[in-house]
Amino acid sequence: MNLDYIIPNEWSIIEEGFNPDNVKASESIFSIGNGAMGQRANFEEHYSGPTFQGSYIAGVYYPDKTRVGWWKNGYPEYFAKVLNAPSWIGIDVNVNGEQIDLYSCKKVENFRRELNMKEGWLSRSFKYTLHNGGEIQVNAKRFLSLELDEIGAIEYSITPLNIDADLVITPYIDGAITNEDSNWDDKFWNISNLEVENDQAFIEAQTMKTNFHTCTFMQSECFVNDQNAGLRPQVIRTDNKISFIYKISVKQQEVFSIHKFGGYTSDRNHDKDALIAETKVALAKATQAGFSQLLSDQKKSWAKIWDMADITIDGDVKAQQGIRFNIFHLNQTYLGTDPKLNIGPKGFTGEKYGGSTYWDTEAYCIPFYMSTKDQSVARNLLTYRYKHLEKAIENAEKLGFSNGVALYPMVTMNGEECHNEWEITFEEIHRNGAIAFAIYNYHRYTGDYSYIPEMGLEVLIGIARFWHQRATYSTYKNKYVILGVTGPNEYENNVNNNWYTNYIAQWCINYTVENIEKIESEFTTDFARIMNKVKLSKAEISEWKSVADNMYFPYSEDHNVFLQQDGFLDKELITVADLDKSQRPINQKWSWDRILRSPYIKQADTLQGFYFFEDHFSTEELERHFDFYEPFTVHESSLSPCVHSIQAAKLDRMEQAYTFYLRTSRLDLDDYNHEVHEGLHITSMAGTWMSIVEGFGGMRVRNNQLTFEPKIPEQWDGYSFKVNFRNQIIKVIVNQNETHFELEGDEDLQILVNEEEVNISPNHLVTVG
Amino acid sequence: MNLDYIIPNEWSIIEEGFNPDNVKASESIFSIGNGAMGQRANFEEHYSGPTFQGSYIAGVYYPDKTRVGWWKNGYPEYFAKVLNAPSWIGIDVNVNGEQIDLYSCKKVENFRRELNMKEGWLSRSFKYTLHNGGEIQVNAKRFLSLELDEIGAIEYSITPLNIDADLVITPYIDGAITNEDSNWDDKFWNISNLEVENDQAFIEAQTMKTNFHTCTFMQSECFVNDQNAGLRPQVIRTDNKISFIYKISVKQQEVFSIHKFGGYTSDRNHDKDALIAETKVALAKATQAGFSQLLSDQKKSWAKIWDMADITIDGDVKAQQGIRFNIFHLNQTYLGTDPKLNIGPKGFTGEKYGGSTYWDTEAYCIPFYMSTKDQSVARNLLTYRYKHLEKAIENAEKLGFSNGVALYPMVTMNGEECHNEWEITFEEIHRNGAIAFAIYNYHRYTGDYSYIPEMGLEVLIGIARFWHQRATYSTYKNKYVILGVTGPNEYENNVNNNWYTNYIAQWCINYTVENIEKIESEFTTDFARIMNKVKLSKAEISEWKSVADNMYFPYSEDHNVFLQQDGFLDKELITVADLDKSQRPINQKWSWDRILRSPYIKQADTLQGFYFFEDHFSTEELERHFDFYEPFTVHESSLSPCVHSIQAAKLDRMEQAYTFYLRTSRLDLDDYNHEVHEGLHITSMAGTWMSIVEGFGGMRVRNNQLTFEPKIPEQWDGYSFKVNFRNQIIKVIVNQNETHFELEGDEDLQILVNEEEVNISPNHLVTVG
Repeated sequence: MNLDYIIPNEWSIIEEGFNPDNVKASESIFSIGNGAMGQRANFEEHYSGPTFQGSYIAGVYYPDKTRVGWWKNGYPEYFAKVLNAPSWIGIDVNVNGEQIDLYSCKKVENFRRELNMKEGWLSRSFKYTLHNGGEIQVNAKRFLSLELDEIGAIEYSITPLNIDADLVITPYIDGAITNEDSNWDDKFWNISNLEVENDQAFIEAQTMKTNFHTCTFMQSECFVNDQNAGLRPQVIRTDNKISFIYKISVKQQEVFSIHKFGGYTSDRNHDKDALIAETKVALAKATQAGFSQLLSDQKKSWAKIWDMADITIDGDVKAQQGIRFNIFHLNQTYLGTDPKLNIGPKGFTGEKYGGSTYWDTEAYCIPFYMSTKDQSVARNLLTYRYKHLEKAIENAEKLGFSNGVALYPMVTMNGEECHNEWEITFEEIHRNGAIAFAIYNYHRYTGDYSYIPEMGLEVLIGIARFWHQRATYSTYKNKYVILGVTGPNEYENNVNNNWYTNYIAQWCINYTVENIEKIESEFTTDFARIMNKVKLSKAEISEWKSVADNMYFPYSEDHNVFLQQDGFLDKELITVADLDKSQRPINQKWSWDRILRSPYIKQADTLQGFYFFEDHFSTEELERHFDFYEPFTVHESSLSPCVHSIQAAKLDRMEQAYTFYLRTSRLDLDDYNHEVHEGLHITSMAGTWMSIVEGFGGMRVRNNQLTFEPKIPEQWDGYSFKVNFRNQIIKVIVNQNETHFELEGDEDLQILVNEEEVNISPNHLVTVG
Repeated sequence: MNLDYIIPNEWSIIEEGFNPDNVKASESIFSIGNGAMGQRANFEEHYSGPTFQGSYIAGVYYPDKTRVGWWKNGYPEYFAKVLNAPSWIGIDVNVNGEQIDLYSCKKVENFRRELNMKEGWLSRSFKYTLHNGGEIQVNAKRFLSLELDEIGAIEYSITPLNIDADLVITPYIDGAITNEDSNWDDKFWNISNLEVENDQAFIEAQTMKTNFHTCTFMQSECFVNDQNAGLRPQVIRTDNKISFIYKISVKQQEVFSIHKFGGYTSDRNHDKDALIAETKVALAKATQAGFSQLLSDQKKSWAKIWDMADITIDGDVKAQQGIRFNIFHLNQTYLGTDPKLNIGPKGFTGEKYGGSTYWDTEAYCIPFYMSTKDQSVARNLLTYRYKHLEKAIENAEKLGFSNGVALYPMVTMNGEECHNEWEITFEEIHRNGAIAFAIYNYHRYTGDYSYIPEMGLEVLIGIARFWHQRATYSTYKNKYVILGVTGPNEYENNVNNNWYTNYIAQWCINYTVENIEKIESEFTTDFARIMNKVKLSKAEISEWKSVADNMYFPYSEDHNVFLQQDGFLDKELITVADLDKSQRPINQKWSWDRILRSPYIKQADTLQGFYFFEDHFSTEELERHFDFYEPFTVHESSLSPCVHSIQAAKLDRMEQAYTFYLRTSRLDLDDYNHEVHEGLHITSMAGTWMSIVEGFGGMRVRNNQLTFEPKIPEQWDGYSFKVNFRNQIIKVIVNQNETHFELEGDEDLQILVNEEEVNISPNHLVTVG
């Protein structure tokens, strides 16, 4: 735990007292977003201290030329990265000739920042002492509207406390923006038009190469004691910035405030030639409603999200704050309404990891969205991959595969691979398995099979073909082996026979064949269409089968476990508990070669297989593997603690499950991995949700039936969650002594609780002892 | 073979006819150097076509900021690279208002380029047709003086053939120089002073960061029909360039010529504040001698080199040309006089591979320099590593080792590691073994033990310590294993138990312990000094021994061979012969993952061990391993064919040995690897020498005695070489029927020829049937 300044609160993230050392971390933690755009919690007014500026538009990216030491064939030319967009939040403030700047000021008191998760707004307040002794009170509140998702709103107010004040207030929009992680300091934006009309300013800018057309805009209005001050701004315009300058004198204790509306429109949603006109429409809606009404709408929209997605935890405020923080940021990042979007590992909170889509979506995020949204959201996420199938085939061709083989990218924006380390790009191929698993998981949970004949089977065939071509027949072993891979544990590179990879490869082939047979007999029209497209022969299928049936799995007789990979037992098997704490995190303390030859595991690898395919193994087998691998696991991936929390809960190790839960849910709040300043770990937040619902709640779907094995950490008085299961909402309330089930729906539902059938009727509470 | 335009000739490299497509290749092939500086064969006059400009000063380098996709702990901050220096060769030529430019000219005829290796000069001649029909003859000759190694000289002459001509001749020096391989387009040079005095011009420039002070200079003089034309130049000076403009009218058939002397002085050899003064001294010597005298000195200097280093081949002019090309470039690159210098893989012929020193020096170059120079040259090369011992210890510390462990860098200029791919930098650790092997090899060949107590033992102890710490005890195998390495075959990364690495690790420890014991008993003063410095306990030595004694070696019972690494047999073992030719070279056709999981071997790996430690294995064992591994070897490293040629000769496979010989000796002339335009493969040229002397000549040193097993390819009538063995020169002349030995020395020498003792007396020819 590397940070502890966040004040525990059930519904809010709160920081009190100003510490410049925490600014970058808070900029990440207090980020706001509305699915269509998002921004780090940068200050509105000028700040001269260390800061990491970031404001992002969903789906607007730039293919940054690849940077490597030595080029290797097959590397992508470009790394698509989320672009830092022109900024619209800036409001410079000058009081009696002094520029307000929390870094260089004489004194700042009562600094307080709050991210109100229940209502979806960010506020900040402080008392500021000028160098000449004058004191002012500043209060700022802002939010990105869920209702009008191109609009953000700021209310920024200044009250001179012991002086009269000449104020110069300068809201601006600024196109001179760069990415900190730019590879070559390329220019990312081409500003084509700056326009001002009345109180509105517009900067039209296009991304280089991808040519996204965007309009960044603002409109502002000034008040004194809540009365419109009728101020007209002086306009200053440079090549890439428009500023409005308002000058006003206010007396001691008078409240000056400015309402600033701003945001982005883009040709992702509008005609590129009509962006300013469309912007005016959006601004008209926003200003017509006004700041207060918009804020009140915001609260209603968030209330609706929470009604479905909230998890309550009683008696443990830090745990409560943690889970809500996770659910809140997931919803800020992705709302599921746009099938061209996906869930970036850092959402709108930082630049790292550039591209938007990782296997995180399929392996970690889909369960959350399936359970807390309409099933169309998860289907949108699957459709996203279907639309990238051609690119996945091209991607495989670049690596030398042929005949319709699909290798989904490790990192992508538009379906093209955009990561450029060979050990990841070329070797971390298990990602292909997760894409297939998500199809299976979607069908298992929703019961909606239609995706598979319509789209999924083509994806599965491309993936099965990949595994067939990627496996190598070892005459020596008389088995198929998979050489040269990186498993989910990225602290091993270029290993042979990573058990997880081999296992999911085998499963993918079997699952694909099973679906081909089902569609052949039950969806004959689809079958004919697909076969016509993919040209699949019985002979090819039987070659696949032969790979699956003869797959090699490394196994240790001595330990009675599957081995993470060939040669794992040659390592010096010192557990993490016996590793000097000064050596942690090893990814910051050790050279890469030392990490690679160590036994330490970054995130669930063999255990990831036991998580996905839990029903293929007995609890005893899980326990044996958990006991063998977890002691070597350093959990230095954000995706690690959640899976281990779920498995620890299943193994009745509640203390350990609880520890993992806190680690996953408060990963960023407590900055476990010493990197929160770079942004939040959005995708792992869905894992946090799983660690409660699947871990403590023990929820599974088996044979079209919801099943639960509720457990509760002794630290908690109770917890509750809701899931949407096939259009019925089930609320689960777990206390130390019993579990209650409540159904919002039309029909009775049969569930299994601790292996016993339980019937729940709509709007009746059922209690299981 | 990708090029075939070089005309076979015993002593010269000749190109006839102008083809712009060959310009970059010829710029590499016709490069000249004198150990202190070198340059690609760029044209003197303006050339607007594709060209790769390069002129380099030995030891003057720049630490270019590392470029990687994702940073890993332990990466070096900088990649030291040989710097492209200000250019001094330029002479622009304007005839009757037209600028001479072979790329844009109307017609060029009788273009001929010759690199005269016997005499050490480069010439070029051509008939040039102006756009208005006028014809001129141009002849240019230049060389870098061995005698005055800061001086280069050019004679450039122009004869109007069918016209009278107004000539504007503009010799210049130019400091506006960049490296093509710059990582970040940094500015490398800071030009501090431009000065002109009479016919002399000077540009003083310092390298950024490393702050080498250099002076690039020129002086010129014009002649008509060999009579000094008494021309005074007009001087043009910009921020980074000084040009002399000579204007003269010459009549049809009159020969205008300019002698230009230029070159570099630097604070590597002079006081930085006296560079111009020192330059004047050098220029005075050069101009006093004049072009002809300097050229005649040049011929004498090269005659001296050839007298010792020449290898003759009768009846095979391409083979003859090849070996002389190799010997010539080795001597152009490194003459052994400066212990701060070393042998860069591309010498002065290109930028690639940046840093100057690789394991190539110890593994491939030292035998050549030991045999063809005074033994002090090889000792200088060993001393170079001794002087870098502290840096090697720091280098190991950066990777997490401690207690005096030394890991020599993969690539270096000043002892610091400067390569930044983890799979090479961190893992290709066998290089440490080659450093130790060179010490052994030096002592074996020269009989000079003094280096070891004076310097070598400290190096050996650092290396032995490395292997001790780098090995891992596998409880599973009850052996020491070495995990996560890259062997000499760089087409495998992060493998476990590379046999070559494990073997040389074991050998290093044993050899170090043996020397510790010897020095303890025979050099007690040195021993005390060293032990005081390295703090080595008996207990530590016995820990080393335990690693060496229990080293694991992967072995296949089925094939009866050591395995290149764990798991090698799991690969799809299709030989190179069965690989479609369209797939070659695989490093240009295949993605990296495909290369890695293939069985294909870039250069001798297991066989490198059999080369170094030949006497540890029977010929049958060698044959078995050669037959197992060579068929999978693609020889895509320049260092590959020579070792295989030597081993094929030993196995009496003369046809194969001959093919490998041609491939190694004409690698660049015939451009086998499709990359000669980037520069020549200098270090592998020493391997070419070995393939004759050790391969065909069968020369070895055993028990302080030279031994030979002469063989001869059927394509040759005969061949001869000389070696300096312990200050006696032995000439070996091999014909199809017998071998002659001749001794230049004072004392009789007992040698072994085909395992029989032969006595050679000074200046008597001994013939063995």
